[in-house]
Amino acid sequence: MDRKKAVLLLSGGLDSTTVLALATAENYEVHALSFSYGQRHASEIAAARKIAARYGVVQHVVADIDLRVFGGSALTADIDVPKDRPVDSAHDVPVTYVPARNTIFLSFALAFAEVTGAHDIFIGVNALDYSGYPDCRPEFIAAFEKMARLATRADADAVDGSEQISIRAPLINMSKKQIVELGLRLGVDYGMTTSCYDPAADGEACGHCDACQLRLRGFAEAGSTDPARYTGQTT
Amino acid sequence: MDRKKAVLLLSGGLDSTTVLALATAENYEVHALSFSYGQRHASEIAAARKIAARYGVVQHVVADIDLRVFGGSALTADIDVPKDRPVDSAHDVPVTYVPARNTIFLSFALAFAEVTGAHDIFIGVNALDYSGYPDCRPEFIAAFEKMARLATRADADAVDGSEQISIRAPLINMSKKQIVELGLRLGVDYGMTTSCYDPAADGEACGHCDACQLRLRGFAEAGSTDPARYTGQTT
Repeated sequence: MDRKKAVLLLSGGLDSTTVLALATAENYEVHALSFSYGQRHASEIAAARKIAARYGVVQHVVADIDLRVFGGSALTADIDVPKDRPVDSAHDVPVTYVPARNTIFLSFALAFAEVTGAHDIFIGVNALDYSGYPDCRPEFIAAFEKMARLATRADADAVDGSEQISIRAPLINMSKKQIVELGLRLGVDYGMTTSCYDPAADGEACGHCDACQLRLRGFAEAGSTDPARYTGQTT
Repeated sequence: MDRKKAVLLLSGGLDSTTVLALATAENYEVHALSFSYGQRHASEIAAARKIAARYGVVQHVVADIDLRVFGGSALTADIDVPKDRPVDSAHDVPVTYVPARNTIFLSFALAFAEVTGAHDIFIGVNALDYSGYPDCRPEFIAAFEKMARLATRADADAVDGSEQISIRAPLINMSKKQIVELGLRLGVDYGMTTSCYDPAADGEACGHCDACQLRLRGFAEAGSTDPARYTGQTT
């Protein structure tokens, strides 16, 4: 039987790599999609390429989009990334929020799905440790899926539900601890992944931005140690 | 009183230019957005720049996105644009359909709206003479609007409905005839606009693709003459 095709958004971070391990375990034929979007942490792209190769995806497209034309975020513009802020009070939208980022990423994934004939789109968002981004909520994912089904040729041609687009966000209700536990069970090499919003030039993580704090706490709560390299760490 | 801000998708074609005239007549402060997306009809961008200047928009951003990485359409890949096909039988999705194009364009418009503080996004789609594209239907626009309201910071911060994103598609239920009549009442100079899917190198329209046929019929039915330049036309 043919393997089912999936488009998978791969940032090179902990979450999307865990989702890739999961989709691979479910025997999907994965078409990975990453973005070069003027982000300061371009080491993400290099990590994504290595991870895609490790998992033997059938195709890895890096789409070039310039979100800097709009400005407005610490990840794409010249605003300082906040450090050591309490992540539990993260229900304000932080300055690291990139306007409409997941909407744009999922829109490109939808185009890629149409061209490859995939009906499943995997994304590694999670709503619990989500840093306060509005486009990581389950109701956003559900609304995007509904819109996507109306947007595409698949819907126009479908005779039953089998050709409908599904947005699969398997981590959406997991804590970082649960995500790390899942990934470790699936054998993910988290040393390959990068999550930091403000890494050093050599790719070492800062250990103090929201993403680093959430990640380190996840490993600690899972009773494990993060194999990623952190600035100032002696090994 | 401050003018209301709007983001407006401006292709340089007949429809989006009519929408720009309408938004200008409604006294919006317009932030225009065009795309360079590897389309074969790059003369669209040049037309959009002239039209944006003519209407005195406060800002015109041309975002560079490479939809060619996905292939799959006669407008971005090496497939022939169909000529002289009967446009009334246009309920099959044609090969000129760009995968998820309006979804991607509206997603960028949403990011731009967040950054500029606009709550209205204007788009010139219409469902009647829509060439069979699934992402030109009213139910798609409604679903996108609902998703957009969940995706954005505006929704997260809103205390009432006034900060909600609205997707405004004022042409959606109009025929091409009605659009031309509206534009002529608003004083649109349609000689500045370009609609052809397959223009000559000098920008002349082919007169035979779906877009040209629909446009020419719209002018004829409105009892007017299209001032655009067509290949082989003697003036």
